[in-house]
Amino acid sequence: MPPDFDTNMRFKFSILALLLEAIIIVLFGIFVDYDTAPLHEHLYPYFQDVHVMIFVGFGFLMTFLKKYGFSSVGFNMLIAAFGLQWGILMQGFWHMNEGKIIVDTKSMINADFSTATALISFGALLGKTSPVQMLILTLLEITIFACNEHLVTEVLEATDVGASMTIHAFGAYFGLAAAFILYCPGLTRKHENDESTYHSDMFAMIGTLFLWLFWPSFNSAIATGVKARTTAIINTYYSLAACTIVTFALSSLVDKRGKFSMVLVQNATLAGGVAVGTCADLEIHPFSAMFIGVIAGIVSVLGFQFLTPVLASKLKIQDTCGVHNLHGLPGILGGIAGIIVTAAKREIRNGHLLTPSMQAAALGSTLGIALVGGALTGAILKLPFLGQVSDQNCFDDSVYWEVPEEETAPEIHSSHHDEQSRLEVAM
Amino acid sequence: MPPDFDTNMRFKFSILALLLEAIIIVLFGIFVDYDTAPLHEHLYPYFQDVHVMIFVGFGFLMTFLKKYGFSSVGFNMLIAAFGLQWGILMQGFWHMNEGKIIVDTKSMINADFSTATALISFGALLGKTSPVQMLILTLLEITIFACNEHLVTEVLEATDVGASMTIHAFGAYFGLAAAFILYCPGLTRKHENDESTYHSDMFAMIGTLFLWLFWPSFNSAIATGVKARTTAIINTYYSLAACTIVTFALSSLVDKRGKFSMVLVQNATLAGGVAVGTCADLEIHPFSAMFIGVIAGIVSVLGFQFLTPVLASKLKIQDTCGVHNLHGLPGILGGIAGIIVTAAKREIRNGHLLTPSMQAAALGSTLGIALVGGALTGAILKLPFLGQVSDQNCFDDSVYWEVPEEETAPEIHSSHHDEQSRLEVAM
Amino acid sequence: MPPDFDTNMRFKFSILALLLEAIIIVLFGIFVDYDTAPLHEHLYPYFQDVHVMIFVGFGFLMTFLKKYGFSSVGFNMLIAAFGLQWGILMQGFWHMNEGKIIVDTKSMINADFSTATALISFGALLGKTSPVQMLILTLLEITIFACNEHLVTEVLEATDVGASMTIHAFGAYFGLAAAFILYCPGLTRKHENDESTYHSDMFAMIGTLFLWLFWPSFNSAIATGVKARTTAIINTYYSLAACTIVTFALSSLVDKRGKFSMVLVQNATLAGGVAVGTCADLEIHPFSAMFIGVIAGIVSVLGFQFLTPVLASKLKIQDTCGVHNLHGLPGILGGIAGIIVTAAKREIRNGHLLTPSMQAAALGSTLGIALVGGALTGAILKLPFLGQVSDQNCFDDSVYWEVPEEETAPEIHSSHHDEQSRLEVAM
Repeated sequence: MPPDFDTNMRFKFSILALLLEAIIIVLFGIFVDYDTAPLHEHLYPYFQDVHVMIFVGFGFLMTFLKKYGFSSVGFNMLIAAFGLQWGILMQGFWHMNEGKIIVDTKSMINADFSTATALISFGALLGKTSPVQMLILTLLEITIFACNEHLVTEVLEATDVGASMTIHAFGAYFGLAAAFILYCPGLTRKHENDESTYHSDMFAMIGTLFLWLFWPSFNSAIATGVKARTTAIINTYYSLAACTIVTFALSSLVDKRGKFSMVLVQNATLAGGVAVGTCADLEIHPFSAMFIGVIAGIVSVLGFQFLTPVLASKLKIQDTCGVHNLHGLPGILGGIAGIIVTAAKREIRNGHLLTPSMQAAALGSTLGIALVGGALTGAILKLPFLGQVSDQNCFDDSVYWEVPEEETAPEIHSSHHDEQSRLEVAM
Repeated sequence: MPPDFDTNMRFKFSILALLLEAIIIVLFGIFVDYDTAPLHEHLYPYFQDVHVMIFVGFGFLMTFLKKYGFSSVGFNMLIAAFGLQWGILMQGFWHMNEGKIIVDTKSMINADFSTATALISFGALLGKTSPVQMLILTLLEITIFACNEHLVTEVLEATDVGASMTIHAFGAYFGLAAAFILYCPGLTRKHENDESTYHSDMFAMIGTLFLWLFWPSFNSAIATGVKARTTAIINTYYSLAACTIVTFALSSLVDKRGKFSMVLVQNATLAGGVAVGTCADLEIHPFSAMFIGVIAGIVSVLGFQFLTPVLASKLKIQDTCGVHNLHGLPGILGGIAGIIVTAAKREIRNGHLLTPSMQAAALGSTLGIALVGGALTGAILKLPFLGQVSDQNCFDDSVYWEVPEEETAPEIHSSHHDEQSRLEVAM
Repeated sequence: MPPDFDTNMRFKFSILALLLEAIIIVLFGIFVDYDTAPLHEHLYPYFQDVHVMIFVGFGFLMTFLKKYGFSSVGFNMLIAAFGLQWGILMQGFWHMNEGKIIVDTKSMINADFSTATALISFGALLGKTSPVQMLILTLLEITIFACNEHLVTEVLEATDVGASMTIHAFGAYFGLAAAFILYCPGLTRKHENDESTYHSDMFAMIGTLFLWLFWPSFNSAIATGVKARTTAIINTYYSLAACTIVTFALSSLVDKRGKFSMVLVQNATLAGGVAVGTCADLEIHPFSAMFIGVIAGIVSVLGFQFLTPVLASKLKIQDTCGVHNLHGLPGILGGIAGIIVTAAKREIRNGHLLTPSMQAAALGSTLGIALVGGALTGAILKLPFLGQVSDQNCFDDSVYWEVPEEETAPEIHSSHHDEQSRLEVAM
């Protein structure tokens, strides 16, 4: 990339970001107010755990790319900071109280949740989109997410306490549909920057661990009552633990020399948290939660190993972080688990019976809306003035960031070597 | 630096540190006791969030320098571990109960707060002072801080729940005054070690994110009652979010190629948390909090971009971490916001009316005491036997730490290259 | 190591891991159930702090080795995820209720605790064992730990709220005994990979800080009642702070050029948390807690500096992470402190008097069982088909992990240099 490369982002991005923030502040001024009698202080530790997952968990999980760490953790922060403001409005419009949207610890948790959908989609598109594109995607995705969430929980009255369907599957298929539309033919051959280094893999483990540790809070935060919260915590804890053992086992088994893969340890270990989400607060028994974790681990490892390459080569869906294997398939698995559990056992939530047909409808509507919404969003993002990078400049922070010279070193070093070698040969 | 360089720190530092610890233990033995009826267990999650901010947040935020990571995170830990012991004594002497200083969760939060002032000043002086100097600065600064805090909250009866004035502005101007006195003429031209690397910037983001995430706890921890705490959490959350969007927008806008700057993302995104501190627990409405965040982001970005270079070149104030832009200006902004809010709206705290004149007096006294205290402290630190490094050895861990050989690699490598090239030329 | 090196781990590890997980799920199905009336939600923040210590704290603390970061943080996760499932069963068998093991927040904390023993032993063996060996060690150690814990707390009715004896001393001496049996003669001369790099030391500090910050939660989580918890928090907080100051002081003092050592800052600063554990919830007064922290810091620094080399050279005990100095000696110190406190002061716990003789018996039984159990376990791990690496391949991730090529760079670079030099000489 020539040093004077200009993405023309300077004014486009600044104006868009400032405009969006101005609109949000006006809408907050009109619609938002404090809770007059705050009831949810006991949820504050749950909120903080979720908050850490969104910013540190998702942010660092995506830093595995060798030259895209600034963008991963930085744009993650940008998307989340924008999304948590937009989410409170979009979710709030469905639950207005005398014309007001009430902000409290619980609605802040829900707003953080809403940003997760955009961050999951960001994972699919990582390295291939501009910040302008990502702001627009966040705006559209959270809007559509809030509608689907309302449909699932209020209209269909389905249960999805840990949001396997409404966040994980939704975010994944939304992002994959957008990735399909935004297909980069130049990336069919693996891009040289589309890989990790030793230290970037270590940074990514920070993200993995904070996601893994606080997933019980994610799945239990909006459960109703102490008992449901405790059940959701226990189920998630054991699903994750079982999933982790299976991930290590299969990671070794699918490698011909029996070696573990950091990609799998960073991602597939988390699939148990996704898959147990829908029925986390139901008393399915800890061993069922473990069983769900085991299946999630198997599905996720096999997805990374065999499905992702096929998606890229045959279906033109380039999924940078493998969100299909971490959020997509395990999210569907969570939805199916919800159908099975509600079919097998009489479960009452908020005064009405959960039925497998409504759970299935929730899963179907989520997938349909995600795919259509993602494809439409992808089409909008394809508009040429939104600054998508050329394929050759993908996965490179220096397109959008001032990067310190020193540590682009590995390449410079080796190219120096090459030059030197050539010089020496020339000698 | 010659490998046998000796800062003569061995005995000076050890004896000073052991002496201070001995004094503290004796004072604790005489004055400190447990709370007989612990009342504040509900604050423990808030305490832990603040604790993480102090050690991980501040510690890693300062690791951006390429060769000063050990000192940043290590001396941060040293200062904080010393300061939290000293702080409980200094703050406690103003609130003795039958000759005893009572330790509980709330006073531990306050003690952690007191260390923040020294850590902010450390940010201004980063890379230019010895650990002996930093212990003395911490000792003096926390002592003076506790007096000013007493003046502001007990005498003037001003409000400053998130400590925009008493911690952030105080710590910044104290540190800047000390930096002015300790001016290093050899650093007028930018020192080669006064810059970041790719990975050091990534480490710094760990600090930024934990500060950003737990700032709502910082601003709400000592608010009185559930309602005030929840209000402080909400205001801080939205101020930070708005500030972050504005920081990204302006970071791109002030760069001629429209690129984002890690310095700004690491620091200016946090200014919203500082600026909303003084009136965080007042019902100023979320959109006002956002507005404060927006102004803080603008002030902080412009400060980094235009003011810091001027401070260094014209006023001889070398501010390594730019604490003026993260804590100084936003701290003053917070104080001004407090004046405006108390002028516009009748606010009662602990049974008395908050007045703009007392808020203004609090801001003025804080700035005055910080500047005078910092200058005097700087003069003491200038005493020659305190081991300040020479200008050429600034920003270098190896002066104070055993550093592994391998990874001073970038330089060694390139110098090897040079030697090799010279050899080759010689051939 | 030849690139086609094969540890034959592929089937051995996978089958063992899957088999163990299957057994656990069956045992959970038979024995485990939810708490019918969850009582411990107020402990959830404590649980999360401990959870972070186990996975992030221990995991990153061990990443200091330059080429063993994947294994440190990855195998730590594997051991902990397995151990927390196995622990609930082993601890639960001693506290069955109508044939059922009840899972709640408190038993999850205890299960996390049980994994700490295996992780401490892992620290002694770090870099020298295969994942197959570590799964077996975890299985055996947690089983034996649960028996000893039952003996100490139920039979001897000794107090050990922060588990100085039952976790820290136990885990350390168990691991050291195993290390003695698994002695690697090829490592008598320091292995070239048995050292840190600049960035690996930074990663390790992440572990140190999260351990340091959340240790008050570790020592208080299972204390009975608000008062005991608050006392444990305060004692631990001040013991750690005092220990940190002393560690810095002595780290400088024992170095002939007065320089600080990252090994000491990463480890010895934590010894105060270990040593205050046994009597953390007793009202020993904060200054006594500080005094314990001071002694712990001294013992730990001197251990690292003078004892570890002797253990390796004379006693054939190779302690990679120095767990003897962080967990072993401070753990014994904690046990002794418990004896002294119960001798000096009448303390009642759960309706019976604590006696120094029972505290001494608890310490003795813990050390005896740990040493015998560790030695027997070491003998089992020595079975040749368990895949222990050869001495020359120790401390190297690439034996067990797919490692990105680029960043094995430091060595490759230098060897390239060598080859190049040789080529040039040949020219």
